[in-house]
Amino acid sequence: MNNWQDYVRRVIPYTPGDQPNKPNMIKLNTNENPYPPAPGVAKVIKNMDAGKLRLYPDPKIKGLIEELANAYGLDNDQIFVGVGSDDVLSLIFLTFFNSDKPILFPDITYSFYPVWADVYGVSYERPKLDDNFMIVKEDYYKENGGIILANPNAPTSIYESLDIIEDILIHNRDSIVVIDEAYIDFGGESAVKLINKYDNLLVVQTFSKSRSMAGMRIGYVMANKKLIKYIDDVKHSINSYTLNYASILAGIESVKDKEYFENSNKKIINTRKKTEKFLTEYGFTFPKSSANFIFAKHEKFKAVDIFGALKASDIYVRYFNHDRIDNYLRITIGTDEEMEELRFFLKKYLNR
Amino acid sequence: MNNWQDYVRRVIPYTPGDQPNKPNMIKLNTNENPYPPAPGVAKVIKNMDAGKLRLYPDPKIKGLIEELANAYGLDNDQIFVGVGSDDVLSLIFLTFFNSDKPILFPDITYSFYPVWADVYGVSYERPKLDDNFMIVKEDYYKENGGIILANPNAPTSIYESLDIIEDILIHNRDSIVVIDEAYIDFGGESAVKLINKYDNLLVVQTFSKSRSMAGMRIGYVMANKKLIKYIDDVKHSINSYTLNYASILAGIESVKDKEYFENSNKKIINTRKKTEKFLTEYGFTFPKSSANFIFAKHEKFKAVDIFGALKASDIYVRYFNHDRIDNYLRITIGTDEEMEELRFFLKKYLNR
Repeated sequence: MNNWQDYVRRVIPYTPGDQPNKPNMIKLNTNENPYPPAPGVAKVIKNMDAGKLRLYPDPKIKGLIEELANAYGLDNDQIFVGVGSDDVLSLIFLTFFNSDKPILFPDITYSFYPVWADVYGVSYERPKLDDNFMIVKEDYYKENGGIILANPNAPTSIYESLDIIEDILIHNRDSIVVIDEAYIDFGGESAVKLINKYDNLLVVQTFSKSRSMAGMRIGYVMANKKLIKYIDDVKHSINSYTLNYASILAGIESVKDKEYFENSNKKIINTRKKTEKFLTEYGFTFPKSSANFIFAKHEKFKAVDIFGALKASDIYVRYFNHDRIDNYLRITIGTDEEMEELRFFLKKYLNR
Repeated sequence: MNNWQDYVRRVIPYTPGDQPNKPNMIKLNTNENPYPPAPGVAKVIKNMDAGKLRLYPDPKIKGLIEELANAYGLDNDQIFVGVGSDDVLSLIFLTFFNSDKPILFPDITYSFYPVWADVYGVSYERPKLDDNFMIVKEDYYKENGGIILANPNAPTSIYESLDIIEDILIHNRDSIVVIDEAYIDFGGESAVKLINKYDNLLVVQTFSKSRSMAGMRIGYVMANKKLIKYIDDVKHSINSYTLNYASILAGIESVKDKEYFENSNKKIINTRKKTEKFLTEYGFTFPKSSANFIFAKHEKFKAVDIFGALKASDIYVRYFNHDRIDNYLRITIGTDEEMEELRFFLKKYLNR
């Protein structure tokens, strides 16, 4: 064996949900939006001058940052944009989580957090959510090297009130606190209103869920300009040009169309209500969802069995073989029609 | 000051060339291709189904990897694709350069190498190129934590023969050796033919130069499947989905059109010859270029003065205020027309 093998960074990578590609499948496994992006996105892509691709894209992503700043009532220098919120979160880990103290995140949450910690050599502790999968805020009063919380949380779908978030911020003025709001537009109130009050707060959002643009890879973080500058410097130490020309154009159109955005979020919330209704009728229980998915277990049938049966019928949901959640299914909210197909299947499968 | 400030990763980011955006400017400063991408790229973007953007892109980037494998006569598992070659190089630093020994790269080369080393906490040594900006191969016989060489080198434009590369590989069987071939299609022979012979060799290329797609952000590395797997695992510990849907589609079309690719490379090489001719006539000297740029100094006029005068006339070239190269201009090869405009300007400015 050659010596270089001793110095390879060996990691256990994150495993994303399956990306099956079957013609008639119902894909409710990766929390994608069932609706297309705003109509302006299709238009700007269709009219895009491909000749411009010979040039580097704007490394400052100015056009898109201006639109976001305008939409959220922030200054341009309070926003950083990356290649999906995963890119943004990874940069945040690399930029801020460098102390010897462990960072904190719940035992049940987005399973990428421990992966980023491992790849960058950060230690971590995982306080347990309570039996209802709620945060025990006192668990975050101890010394730490940073805190990251998904709100609404995944895969639980639970939204914690801003009072809880603010309480944790107040008890952690010496730590960076990251609120990962990938699902915030489906029912929660964003912590972005707190960024001017807490200089240690970062609020991360994404175009992949509520903006129907998982395929374009756009995520962003909002914070005070000092924190944004630190992230931007690290980003510019890795790759000057991340968002490509097409993403920037498409992102701008998406943010501009506020009405379309709000309508498709409403549609998903309505479909979620209908889905909750039939799931309850069929013997499922689940926490109150503030996301575009439901985290459900059945009173009699095992989650892994339902998961397998659904998959055999080309209906894909997500199952996690992890401690405490191995009897739950995470079901993305699709269109009304897709959820009806799910309902038909479950009615038959569960003998209802 | 809050404690979290003690743990911020503080870096001096890479400074890319200016990205001015003036209507009649002549942009010869960031080695972009003056020609548009292959016609199939415009077509596939125009016909792209924006509705598909709601879904995550293929995390395995299979379609594009297959086209590249086909083009280079490799197996799919010998190629890794990232968001420009900068993303790929950054991942290589993170994956392989983890020993306590310094990595080696020349004193004059792509100025991102020390930035990646710094952000990931890697020490480095920079052996001096000789007075003709050529590698002194014996400088790379010492113990090291890895080697990275740009070939052709930037900003010098000089291509080192594969004999030199192979000699360095032979003397470094215990180190990872990275050959960064961003400019290889403009005149050099790729080291990719050596990847099956040397298990420690990585060859990086990009779509940003010879494929006219800087705006789409696509780069790749070719190596044996073991090395590729290590990089892929680290990548999947950072961001599962990097290349967006549009990039993958566009990249495939670019690779498919071999004829267009070869023709536009030939055009640039022809324009380079004409440019070399008038630069020589006007009193410039420069190493033999194997890239899409020329690294020139003038017998009388200072580079910084010419640079400033060009800029004032909206002709952008690159000037580096660095030791040993502060009297050189790096001039990208544009279209014949653009180089003619450069010639007119220089003729007048230099009183020729």
